[in-house]
Amino acid sequence: MDELKSSLSKIAGKVDQIIAESTFPTGVKPAYLAAAMRSYPANGGKRLRPAIMLWSVAAAGGNMEDFLPAAAGLEIFHNWTLVHDDIIDDDDSRRGEPTAHVTLARAMELPENKRRKFGCDMAILAGDLMQGWAFDLVDQSRCSAELKLKLAAELRSYGYIKLVSGEALDVEMSFRSTDEAELLAMQSGKTGALLHYAARAGWMAGRGQAAAWNDEAAQALGSFGEYLAWAFQMRDDYLGIFGKYEEFGKPIGSDLAEGKATLLLLHALQNLPEAARKKLQSLLYCSSYTPDMLETARELFQQAGSLQYVLDMIDTMTCKAQQALDKLPETAEREILRKLAGYLAYREK
Amino acid sequence: MDELKSSLSKIAGKVDQIIAESTFPTGVKPAYLAAAMRSYPANGGKRLRPAIMLWSVAAAGGNMEDFLPAAAGLEIFHNWTLVHDDIIDDDDSRRGEPTAHVTLARAMELPENKRRKFGCDMAILAGDLMQGWAFDLVDQSRCSAELKLKLAAELRSYGYIKLVSGEALDVEMSFRSTDEAELLAMQSGKTGALLHYAARAGWMAGRGQAAAWNDEAAQALGSFGEYLAWAFQMRDDYLGIFGKYEEFGKPIGSDLAEGKATLLLLHALQNLPEAARKKLQSLLYCSSYTPDMLETARELFQQAGSLQYVLDMIDTMTCKAQQALDKLPETAEREILRKLAGYLAYREK
Repeated sequence: MDELKSSLSKIAGKVDQIIAESTFPTGVKPAYLAAAMRSYPANGGKRLRPAIMLWSVAAAGGNMEDFLPAAAGLEIFHNWTLVHDDIIDDDDSRRGEPTAHVTLARAMELPENKRRKFGCDMAILAGDLMQGWAFDLVDQSRCSAELKLKLAAELRSYGYIKLVSGEALDVEMSFRSTDEAELLAMQSGKTGALLHYAARAGWMAGRGQAAAWNDEAAQALGSFGEYLAWAFQMRDDYLGIFGKYEEFGKPIGSDLAEGKATLLLLHALQNLPEAARKKLQSLLYCSSYTPDMLETARELFQQAGSLQYVLDMIDTMTCKAQQALDKLPETAEREILRKLAGYLAYREK
Repeated sequence: MDELKSSLSKIAGKVDQIIAESTFPTGVKPAYLAAAMRSYPANGGKRLRPAIMLWSVAAAGGNMEDFLPAAAGLEIFHNWTLVHDDIIDDDDSRRGEPTAHVTLARAMELPENKRRKFGCDMAILAGDLMQGWAFDLVDQSRCSAELKLKLAAELRSYGYIKLVSGEALDVEMSFRSTDEAELLAMQSGKTGALLHYAARAGWMAGRGQAAAWNDEAAQALGSFGEYLAWAFQMRDDYLGIFGKYEEFGKPIGSDLAEGKATLLLLHALQNLPEAARKKLQSLLYCSSYTPDMLETARELFQQAGSLQYVLDMIDTMTCKAQQALDKLPETAEREILRKLAGYLAYREK
């Protein structure tokens, strides 16, 4: 555990340094737009994707230092998706700070009724610029030109085609009914694609050649990333109802307030008897939640067997993620990846 | 002239074929999002950027066929900027068809008050996907890995840093006063950057090596692209007031209706005596324009010397663009580029 945390924090420091020293945003004008490009990565986050990539590099026998820029580029890629996602979800805060479009709305002195649109317009552009920046960083890795091209090509395949399709499905699902299979497919795109890429591209990079993308270990790492994403997401859903605000950091019940399709909710709606289902439905889309309302919701999830179902699913996904790692040679970094899966599945925050 | 048009149409056909056959959008879901990625390129446009790139390839002694994918990628890059620009400008139509966010607003059956936001959200994602697609195409050119990397790196430098900064400046300028120098800087980014890239990257590609980016001829082609962009933009401004709707295709006077900062307007506002300036100002931001109002505006632009000023500037910019071409070896394609500059500067549509 300590080893995991100290390695993660060491990697985060190095990745942050690469990002801070990158000159790509310096040419951007106006200055507030360049500042917006840097604001999300500077505003915390776990640096999970870069760390997974770099542990995979080491697990494949490569030198992490050579791929710090690729890992930093992956983090910037992840962050542009957050900037555009926050516009789409109309979210005003992230990690306790105002979102990009909210900050940018105040970049010029404008009439009140023009601000929000201006902020969103500039945040669209900030997210666009970060896409260029992400690939600029990937390109600065120390490796062959062929490997750089493959790192970028697979980032496009997973980061655009799969991730953005997942994001679009998420938007669509908020307007219509869905089921468990579709929910898992959406999460596999929106979260799984980039974790798949992180783990698998790291292996390829560590082997030093594009052909290693299809190594058995690389494919296993791709699966590891996808199972990890599901387990991570399900734990998020669990903590959103059964967690503690002081630890989790997000308001408990906000998923209910949004009527967000989660595995927990879909399972309960399908398995509760009619009266109880109606009771649960009456707890959706409320403007605020008292402790009593949350307690009622928790009891309904337990009564439906949904709590146990989700906890079992988290166990299963975590187990599958860890099993995938058996295809890798024994290294210290493989064990860190294994510990990471356990840590994310049973975290309280 | 005929040679220019037949070469342009031949190139456009080949570029369109590459775009039509590209499989990148096929993996995207939902299907309407994949369709949105293809809609702008399928909806006409002059294919100016691909053609300039490929003429430069040939002018440098290279084989156009090898770089058709790079040229197609450049066209897709241009088109994502239009998709996001149309959201930002809140434009409902482009080239006589509904813009991406307007089409996407009808992709699902939604309550009336949810449609516009949904359309904009999906159009943000369509533009994002097109960014990935653009570089995927560039990567499919027939050349060394080093050259592919350089083609992509310079596209990021010109297409993101310079172009998007110009776009942001354009948004900002619509909320405050500006001057001629800033207007030219904005146009140099928003339009000039990609034409600079098209011409210069074409030369480099034709020479077959990244180092050719800094050839004297490559730099001259970069200047050619920038002067061309200014002349093109100024002719646009001219046609927006002095053109004929039947030929130009955009409503005459729409620049006045938007109060758009154009060289014509900035010059007139600075050079007209007070009474005439106030008269011109009263002709801005009107909801519609009668022939009399337009005639009054035209007379004011003539009285201020602004018409002559802009026509002279177009001549100067075109002349400089053509002079830059003197740094190139004599080839048929150099002459096509020369003719292109003359054609764009004196076009009626």
